[in-house]
Amino acid sequence: MKIKPVKGTRDFYPEQMRLRNWITDGWKSASLRCGFQEYDGPIFEYLAMYQQKSGDEIAEQLFSLEDRGGRNLAIRPEITPTLARMVNQKINALPRPIKWFSVPRVCRAERPQKGRLREFFQWNIDIIGVEDIIADAEVIFCAVDYLRSAGLTAADIVAKISSRKMLADIFESLGVPPEKHTPLYAVLDKRAKISDEAFAEMLDKTLADKPLEAKVTELMNIKTIKELYETIELTDAAKSAVDELKRLFEMLDAMGISDFCQFDISIVRGLAYYTGPVFEIHDRGGELRAVCGGGRFDNLLKDFGGPEVPATGMGMGDCVLEILLREKGLIDDNMTGELDYYIVCLDSELMSTAISTTAALRSKGFSAEMTYKPAKMGKQMKQAAGLGAKYCIILGQEYLEHGMVGLKNMKTGDQEDKILSDIIDTETKA
Amino acid sequence: MKIKPVKGTRDFYPEQMRLRNWITDGWKSASLRCGFQEYDGPIFEYLAMYQQKSGDEIAEQLFSLEDRGGRNLAIRPEITPTLARMVNQKINALPRPIKWFSVPRVCRAERPQKGRLREFFQWNIDIIGVEDIIADAEVIFCAVDYLRSAGLTAADIVAKISSRKMLADIFESLGVPPEKHTPLYAVLDKRAKISDEAFAEMLDKTLADKPLEAKVTELMNIKTIKELYETIELTDAAKSAVDELKRLFEMLDAMGISDFCQFDISIVRGLAYYTGPVFEIHDRGGELRAVCGGGRFDNLLKDFGGPEVPATGMGMGDCVLEILLREKGLIDDNMTGELDYYIVCLDSELMSTAISTTAALRSKGFSAEMTYKPAKMGKQMKQAAGLGAKYCIILGQEYLEHGMVGLKNMKTGDQEDKILSDIIDTETKA
Repeated sequence: MKIKPVKGTRDFYPEQMRLRNWITDGWKSASLRCGFQEYDGPIFEYLAMYQQKSGDEIAEQLFSLEDRGGRNLAIRPEITPTLARMVNQKINALPRPIKWFSVPRVCRAERPQKGRLREFFQWNIDIIGVEDIIADAEVIFCAVDYLRSAGLTAADIVAKISSRKMLADIFESLGVPPEKHTPLYAVLDKRAKISDEAFAEMLDKTLADKPLEAKVTELMNIKTIKELYETIELTDAAKSAVDELKRLFEMLDAMGISDFCQFDISIVRGLAYYTGPVFEIHDRGGELRAVCGGGRFDNLLKDFGGPEVPATGMGMGDCVLEILLREKGLIDDNMTGELDYYIVCLDSELMSTAISTTAALRSKGFSAEMTYKPAKMGKQMKQAAGLGAKYCIILGQEYLEHGMVGLKNMKTGDQEDKILSDIIDTETKA
Repeated sequence: MKIKPVKGTRDFYPEQMRLRNWITDGWKSASLRCGFQEYDGPIFEYLAMYQQKSGDEIAEQLFSLEDRGGRNLAIRPEITPTLARMVNQKINALPRPIKWFSVPRVCRAERPQKGRLREFFQWNIDIIGVEDIIADAEVIFCAVDYLRSAGLTAADIVAKISSRKMLADIFESLGVPPEKHTPLYAVLDKRAKISDEAFAEMLDKTLADKPLEAKVTELMNIKTIKELYETIELTDAAKSAVDELKRLFEMLDAMGISDFCQFDISIVRGLAYYTGPVFEIHDRGGELRAVCGGGRFDNLLKDFGGPEVPATGMGMGDCVLEILLREKGLIDDNMTGELDYYIVCLDSELMSTAISTTAALRSKGFSAEMTYKPAKMGKQMKQAAGLGAKYCIILGQEYLEHGMVGLKNMKTGDQEDKILSDIIDTETKA
């Protein structure tokens, strides 16, 4: 008869909900600070939209359902397809640049493991309609700005940045055949997670050309943009792509976040759809999955039946982030709620006064809670403290005899006698 | 190739999202003011949980799905079963009273129509562990407190209040056989929506006892609690139930919301599970469906395999509410976002300064946006206004020549020359 929750989902009791709100409120604040506007779509869309256009891995993890009309639907595994659909629907009416953010709940039928659940929250920010690399700088800045506001420093995290377009142009400079580009990205994407030997083997399997493999390996060992100019013979296209990336770093420097940013040629992102700069933010220790990732995907709208419009963005889930914040001691597990007043009532004759006082304070905009039955002072004080009350108003013998209440400051412990109406009539809460 | 949204769902473009946030933020504020703590559960649960325990109507409207392990799941059509599951799981660890609220997204496979969509948001507040009617008063107060904060007055809405327990006891006083109680509630629930003749017919079909039907019809015409005492011969049980309801109205009066409250014996609520006071809030005109409804359901935890613990609560969806608020002129359709600063840049040489200024303001906690390319003053001003900017910082010739920027107050139109660093170095945003 007892019912269980479904594996891979979470229950948010008030304690966990406060943590979730702290994270999502931080995402929202950073987005608004950086000039993004919030949007959202439905929790389910047509299944076909995800099957055709999401990355392969995501398409395999869909929770699909059928409605009464026999339509095939799926719970959203990500919000990007919805974003593309919504923007395409109103492409001519929306003022550009389109700078939107969302904090969707998304579901993926994955095997639950550390940092991966079947239901999670994912912060998304996107800029549509800006070709210049300034949009990419804005996206990276906003992600870093949030992480910094949560308490993480440049010693904790690093944004690893590269460019898919630059890599494609360099591949061409090196003589990698065009049809090998996409499989090569997949190999490079695995590099950080496997041994050098395993990497060499995968590379050989993909390219089957030892001299070329050596060149690619050499390329992957390049640590700075300066080295790129110096050690690779760049075609004009490749040089202009490197120049663009250099400009991106100059902008990040002007934004004051260069400590958080680092060129890393091995960042390619798994998904095939990226077309320009790409980035991932990792813990410096490199022990966790990426905290977030993103990049330019200029085919976003076109892939969903719309026009060609430049686009760049990123996504950050709450699961790996929470692990990282906890490891760095940035999560307060004793977060209580906040309450302006708790009304203590020591006599059943005074319950009606307690009720009207509580309601009067709430009507003025204060948060207020009361005991639902007269109980011992200590029990009521304990409850008030548990709710994070700033003040207690004590209704007892003093009120019955002299019309006075006790006003106790729960932080300092100080208590003074007050006339009840003087408390209620103080200024309205801002 | 163009993909459509699913019928009965909504896309929240920034404009609609601002409205949705205004509503849900209002719900959250009222909940916190009244001492409720936020919780949430997964978007899907085991199908069986809803099939067994939701009202019949809801069980027929489930969006069900199967996961890879063959488990039968459903998207939540309401959050009450999740609440019961969560509370039961930790019943001995949770301090009482349990006063929780949630603002879940829920889905029902209904035919979309005015005020009914297949996906909506529903504010839920519940108090578990309080037997006294004060908990019912608190729930009604909180619902009214929100509606009042949204701008609705006692001339716009009314909370119609009755008691299922009282009705059951009176039915017994009148001699209605116990097995007829539940079907009779269903008939009474329809009364406001059908003609007197249709009502009489349904009543006859259910009771098949003319004298008894006359008594029930007479009962339904009673307008005040006073009349109840005077015109019905009440058993002791019925009298104590009426006394309790009388106390509820006294509390609502002490809370200062009696203008919003009215006894209405015809309110029974469709669902079978209510066990005490029940209420619905309606527009005074009576033209819309109920804005919200709720009541006492002391079997809540027990129905889900838990112990017997008293409970009372209510739910309010966003669809009917939005229609009502719009009808009353309380929705501002020109709500813009808010932005502290918009950085206008008139010269490409100054783009780097614009970038660093924008980032510096954001790093101080201000919201700031900039143009992504130097454009004409008018175009940039228009964009700033569209984003709800309070101030524009104008970077142009004056800055290149004398290091001065223009600071324009977008509300008054006043503009003054400033040293850039003086603006950035002003106090940090609270």
